[in-house]
Amino acid sequence: MKIKKILIDKKENKYYWKEGDFHSSLGKIGEKDIISGNIKSHLGKEFICFNASFADNVLNMGKGPAIMLPKDIGFIISYSGINEKSRIVEAGAGSGVLTAFLSNISHDVYSYEKNESNYNLARKNLDELGIKTNLKNKDITEGIDEKDIDLIMLDLPNPWEVLKHAEKSLKSGGFLISYLPAITQVQKLVDSKGDNFFFDKAIELIEREWYVEGQKVRPKSRMIGHTGFLVIFRKI
Amino acid sequence: MKIKKILIDKKENKYYWKEGDFHSSLGKIGEKDIISGNIKSHLGKEFICFNASFADNVLNMGKGPAIMLPKDIGFIISYSGINEKSRIVEAGAGSGVLTAFLSNISHDVYSYEKNESNYNLARKNLDELGIKTNLKNKDITEGIDEKDIDLIMLDLPNPWEVLKHAEKSLKSGGFLISYLPAITQVQKLVDSKGDNFFFDKAIELIEREWYVEGQKVRPKSRMIGHTGFLVIFRKI
Amino acid sequence: MKIKKILIDKKENKYYWKEGDFHSSLGKIGEKDIISGNIKSHLGKEFICFNASFADNVLNMGKGPAIMLPKDIGFIISYSGINEKSRIVEAGAGSGVLTAFLSNISHDVYSYEKNESNYNLARKNLDELGIKTNLKNKDITEGIDEKDIDLIMLDLPNPWEVLKHAEKSLKSGGFLISYLPAITQVQKLVDSKGDNFFFDKAIELIEREWYVEGQKVRPKSRMIGHTGFLVIFRKI
Amino acid sequence: MKIKKILIDKKENKYYWKEGDFHSSLGKIGEKDIISGNIKSHLGKEFICFNASFADNVLNMGKGPAIMLPKDIGFIISYSGINEKSRIVEAGAGSGVLTAFLSNISHDVYSYEKNESNYNLARKNLDELGIKTNLKNKDITEGIDEKDIDLIMLDLPNPWEVLKHAEKSLKSGGFLISYLPAITQVQKLVDSKGDNFFFDKAIELIEREWYVEGQKVRPKSRMIGHTGFLVIFRKI
Repeated sequence: MKIKKILIDKKENKYYWKEGDFHSSLGKIGEKDIISGNIKSHLGKEFICFNASFADNVLNMGKGPAIMLPKDIGFIISYSGINEKSRIVEAGAGSGVLTAFLSNISHDVYSYEKNESNYNLARKNLDELGIKTNLKNKDITEGIDEKDIDLIMLDLPNPWEVLKHAEKSLKSGGFLISYLPAITQVQKLVDSKGDNFFFDKAIELIEREWYVEGQKVRPKSRMIGHTGFLVIFRKI
Repeated sequence: MKIKKILIDKKENKYYWKEGDFHSSLGKIGEKDIISGNIKSHLGKEFICFNASFADNVLNMGKGPAIMLPKDIGFIISYSGINEKSRIVEAGAGSGVLTAFLSNISHDVYSYEKNESNYNLARKNLDELGIKTNLKNKDITEGIDEKDIDLIMLDLPNPWEVLKHAEKSLKSGGFLISYLPAITQVQKLVDSKGDNFFFDKAIELIEREWYVEGQKVRPKSRMIGHTGFLVIFRKI
Repeated sequence: MKIKKILIDKKENKYYWKEGDFHSSLGKIGEKDIISGNIKSHLGKEFICFNASFADNVLNMGKGPAIMLPKDIGFIISYSGINEKSRIVEAGAGSGVLTAFLSNISHDVYSYEKNESNYNLARKNLDELGIKTNLKNKDITEGIDEKDIDLIMLDLPNPWEVLKHAEKSLKSGGFLISYLPAITQVQKLVDSKGDNFFFDKAIELIEREWYVEGQKVRPKSRMIGHTGFLVIFRKI
Repeated sequence: MKIKKILIDKKENKYYWKEGDFHSSLGKIGEKDIISGNIKSHLGKEFICFNASFADNVLNMGKGPAIMLPKDIGFIISYSGINEKSRIVEAGAGSGVLTAFLSNISHDVYSYEKNESNYNLARKNLDELGIKTNLKNKDITEGIDEKDIDLIMLDLPNPWEVLKHAEKSLKSGGFLISYLPAITQVQKLVDSKGDNFFFDKAIELIEREWYVEGQKVRPKSRMIGHTGFLVIFRKI
């Protein structure tokens, strides 16, 4: 079931509402009173309320493996220039977050996940959001079924084992992008490149959030220091 | 005309090829020999060659106003969760780079540009790439024609003048995202928020490129220190 | 009393030992057995043990106002080039951390703190470490007693109120450095500069820690996003 | 000879003056007119003028190997807590920049440089600034002559070859700090640590400069992306 509304109290706590009456320590709100705008609980506590977005839903899917963040997912989407017609292969699906974002852009996504419990989790998560995708319980290091691919996106610890399959599946100029937590993995992948790929670049994206309230304008004190490196190859 | 192929010489210099014979200081290559793979000039100099992508084309459109980079564009796309059915308003179009990326995702993009020479430049750039969009030579601070919008994306110096129009055009939960070079603009925009928007967050994205060659693995010595801040409002 | 030894258990927890027997949930170690090297508790748990440094002591002084970190303190020391002969004025002393570091380099430090409880805290902290300094319970915005100063270091919310005094106290080329949490304060200070100072630069220092263990080499997941900006003026 | 004064023109260009008349494309200023304050050339062009600092001199010494920056040097000084009584060993001296900063704090610095031309350059640079230090044309990987050392600071490509000497020379709790451009070197050093050192931490410091003028307040567009990693060991 989807998150339909987001409620935010005076202390900026967020609540994700799906259906039925809303209950919290700040009081109850009946289902028919949960409408966009300023609403109040039976204890008179105020909330603002608005419609949940696609990303609100995807980023709050059931817990599972560590998920990719919008900064990294967005870079992959814009840098590869994918659109509704793009043919995309992805592995491993994990809990399905990246799968959801890619399937939101294109109708032609093929997603590999070798671990059965992750596969089932992704299946469940994507079904709940009504996202259609070609999810397979298969190990991508054993082969890629699809050809004429625009983007292969790898979120797995051993992307170098996929190179020999990727070079047969990608179009000329197609993108192979790997998301890797450790710099040692980046090094190994670049060393394994071979002659059929051009190493475009390896980057990391650092997101810095600012606190902005009146004269108090400064970066927030705590931040995420690292998610993963992105390594971009182009098929020659 | 589109860039069709990218050629890269042994020193990693990039050449963008559109049509006809290829001429460079490293020699000539006849049009019919410009194919994906390893190719040679008449001087025997080697190049690798592959198909140009959508992003290769957009990011190398004719010079004009400063352009947004994939890191910032990508964040907007993923964070707002837009897809082919999303209704998007954008201003100002500038040279059309962001317009192109948004139009690549959705068929329903309305782009405002008040400056006539920028408007003509964007028009020309988008036509050359075959990108269809609703580009208007209009000042968005005077009004927004469209309703039921999912995302309003503002790349202009005075986004606070758009708020009163944006609140009538956005759906509940819809995104208003502003790209702003100066932190003083961020402060002014957040101060101007009013009661119809929720201030979600203000961030900056820092892209750090790594040099990776054998044992030489380190961040590159020079980097882009700043592009712009992204301020995200949600319509209540 | 000073921290004399640091003990570190197998899980890399740190313990600061001053005197007497050492007691922890991992067992007891008698005072005479607390020597540098590998030592064991009566439960057979292993610790490594080494002498505490000056910085270990200063950074673990009694709790009080937020303290400056080595990255920022170090920049001030190296950029201003102070040494044992430098004449330094500092305000506000807070809990005395920066005072301790500056007094460790120079014998001629004059430290202002208008708040009496902070003054007493700094006094107590510095005495415990045996650090001699000229600590005054005075408001620096009302005047600076010293002349021929090499460095004035301000860690207070209103440094612009000190400028008219600072310009009389600093040598030509002397440094006025302000540590400011908010960018709005940076802006106000630079706007208030006047004709007797050269605005050298405004920076922030971001410290990124890496996790390094075998093949797991990556930036740590969480980091401090912000401490303060450093604004550097030179007296003309 | 030392830089005595810094002159800055209206476009914020800096000039370092040592002695004699000052000549520039903006006109001449006679030696006796070069005094701190606002001064004019014979063409009526205005300059501000103030005394050069220690750091102004050190950071502008004759060109040679890449130099360490104040952000990294400062961290080493503050984190290790050195003062005038500290016993410090450093290698390799390079052009003498770090040697100068360390010798400015302590009278007891021993600096190793195996390369003869670097040794001569450092010798000449330090003599010109009147900095006394124990500079040796020796390879530190062959041994360290000094005992009871508080800080060993290594700016060389193979610090792991120094560990067996360093463990005999450092006091308990003493610091071994290595400055390394590549993360692969960091990994190798940490892997080579042995039982006599505690791996305290590995960091990088990112300095971000801000443009601050009226309402134009933003990070500068270009920045230094990387200098080196700092790896900190403590002697057990």
